[in-house]
Amino acid sequence: MIPSNLPFGLDEYSARLTKVRAAMQQVGCDVLVVTDPANMAWLTGYDGWSFYVHQAVIIGPSGPPLWWGRAMDALGALRTVYMPSDAVFGYEDTFVQNPDKHPMEDLSRLLSAQGWANARIGLEMDNYYFTAAAYMSLVQELPSAIWVNANVLVNWQRAVKSPTEITYMRRAAKIVENMHATILNRAEPGMKKNELIADIYHAAIAGVDGHWGDYPSIVPLAPSGKDATAPHLTWDDNELQAGEATFFEIAGVYRRYHAPQSRTLFFGEPPAKYRTAEAAVMEAVAAGMEQAKPGNFAEDISNAFNATLNRLGFEKDSRCGYPIGLSYPPDWGEHTFSLRRDDRTVLEPGMTFHFMPALWLDDGGIEITEPVLITETSAEYLCTTPRGLMVKG
Amino acid sequence: MIPSNLPFGLDEYSARLTKVRAAMQQVGCDVLVVTDPANMAWLTGYDGWSFYVHQAVIIGPSGPPLWWGRAMDALGALRTVYMPSDAVFGYEDTFVQNPDKHPMEDLSRLLSAQGWANARIGLEMDNYYFTAAAYMSLVQELPSAIWVNANVLVNWQRAVKSPTEITYMRRAAKIVENMHATILNRAEPGMKKNELIADIYHAAIAGVDGHWGDYPSIVPLAPSGKDATAPHLTWDDNELQAGEATFFEIAGVYRRYHAPQSRTLFFGEPPAKYRTAEAAVMEAVAAGMEQAKPGNFAEDISNAFNATLNRLGFEKDSRCGYPIGLSYPPDWGEHTFSLRRDDRTVLEPGMTFHFMPALWLDDGGIEITEPVLITETSAEYLCTTPRGLMVKG
Repeated sequence: MIPSNLPFGLDEYSARLTKVRAAMQQVGCDVLVVTDPANMAWLTGYDGWSFYVHQAVIIGPSGPPLWWGRAMDALGALRTVYMPSDAVFGYEDTFVQNPDKHPMEDLSRLLSAQGWANARIGLEMDNYYFTAAAYMSLVQELPSAIWVNANVLVNWQRAVKSPTEITYMRRAAKIVENMHATILNRAEPGMKKNELIADIYHAAIAGVDGHWGDYPSIVPLAPSGKDATAPHLTWDDNELQAGEATFFEIAGVYRRYHAPQSRTLFFGEPPAKYRTAEAAVMEAVAAGMEQAKPGNFAEDISNAFNATLNRLGFEKDSRCGYPIGLSYPPDWGEHTFSLRRDDRTVLEPGMTFHFMPALWLDDGGIEITEPVLITETSAEYLCTTPRGLMVKG
Repeated sequence: MIPSNLPFGLDEYSARLTKVRAAMQQVGCDVLVVTDPANMAWLTGYDGWSFYVHQAVIIGPSGPPLWWGRAMDALGALRTVYMPSDAVFGYEDTFVQNPDKHPMEDLSRLLSAQGWANARIGLEMDNYYFTAAAYMSLVQELPSAIWVNANVLVNWQRAVKSPTEITYMRRAAKIVENMHATILNRAEPGMKKNELIADIYHAAIAGVDGHWGDYPSIVPLAPSGKDATAPHLTWDDNELQAGEATFFEIAGVYRRYHAPQSRTLFFGEPPAKYRTAEAAVMEAVAAGMEQAKPGNFAEDISNAFNATLNRLGFEKDSRCGYPIGLSYPPDWGEHTFSLRRDDRTVLEPGMTFHFMPALWLDDGGIEITEPVLITETSAEYLCTTPRGLMVKG
């Protein structure tokens, strides 16, 4: 039975499967074991917080994808995937976190039963949810299989977004705009940081314009002052201070599609140093955006960005962006290309990325970042949040 | 410089290190590469959402733990760990998600530089954040090392909680009590599910009694009706319905310490079938709790629980609990013992677990679950939320 709330039409799932099979042929694999939860969802509709146990979607040379996971989660698969119930396989609960046996023994039996014990099998070797032990178990159980590293093979097929995917990302963009408006509205000196984060979460999940909010693949990052010299600290109950910058790296999410956007908040006029950094970032971003168009390379954006930034006296030694879309924790990036030197990925209409020109200075950080869509001729910001530093009071 | 908000005293970190080194000796490894974010935090104080890139804490035969990760996250380590800055190592940003090189090449150089190229090195082989590719890279770069599977070695040292850890879990328990009170207070037929989840999140992060809420390692699971036949579905914007059960599996979190607790909500009197299931679960839980005491095995709890449940006409074919405490996404379980047949882990005072007697029936689910502490003589529920079905109106 096809779930009534399947996020995409059957034709779209079918087209995705065709694209993936073509890519499999290119790397020479007959069968693909997909363990990245975002790839699993993109291929089948599966949606559930079950990626803390071993699970996979298997793409064979023909036929529908197979869903495989813990028996109790097979019930969740039956509620969310488009395939028939005989394409859903559950393993017994004693395989869960048991040092004496590994769930991949069960997957190996399934692969054998499908006639794939001697197949060329693709694996997502550097995916979070494909552990060293999972790999060792497969290699031991299926000694005649030929293993192919198919890491991020499916991710690459996700790089160009369909019209429905772009619609979902636009909804996510409206949600993150509202989250930043909530910050500007609620934040006050003396307010405990976690109280503000509670309000941000409320705005994220309530959604806007009748579109509900889903959970983000990264929780709000919201360091203040010296803590903002580091990019990935979360929150505590310290009070917001006048004279201290806080950056908010957050995302709106609609049906697992992400629109991340960051802003940096000051109470009162920021120090001149921050205004200088702001101007440099804005000018460098504008230079980068001019290069964000079909036919250019990913590095064209970062090279233009970095050249301008350096000319203005600042330096950033990390990538300044990465693709975004459908994702599950722990990351909202798609792990394909990066906006950095030597990345020659050709930009195409429908690609989406997080332009991430964050500067972490010696005494704080400044993040003014945007979700961006490559259009037929150039690039478009998905959000209308006022750019620049966020100044209150 | 020791961070002012380090969650535990230096003596506690020192005792943890001693315990881990003793366990390393037992499995015969000189060096341990710790990639589980909860283990990294427990050993060093490190706290940041950076586990989406490769990182580790390394325990050598002597000296402080070493923190290793992406250069930008080394700044976060300097803000959160107790070790001196020369124990913190950052790798260059071009290693991030780059098919041409792997961060473990950098870790291999660090291990060599420490004189450990020929050491017996323990690895957390089945940890989410230790991928197949990470393992293959280490094996290739350090051909003379001897690799030891040290999966969940550190997790086991975390099983018995210290007084401060128990204090943190009691605070988390108060937070989850308040989250369930919020559900009872706010939920109404016709309310959109995501609006209720927004309120739950707000209560989770705002915290109670002056103790702030941290993010949970699993987002709220809140399926209704037929969707509640599956355990791990999240939410959408469907309206809550009279005559339909919704279960809420949620956790309060204080400084990464979790108190998970579930309740099942009905508007109006539940059907007789659910009252029968409720009575069976309550009686089976009581039987299990009688076995929850120092000296007993983990399986004594589940055997008593299952025997009672079966006698009353119900069956549960999955484990009925697992240890809890410090954790990071995607799981709040500790991955050591399970409450299931044949698990002969000896219970000790200070152990904490989620007693998880969920039943997924043919037309819905019932979850009434508790965080539990093993005391000197028996066991204690950490929460005072009224037990049984949650009935409103």
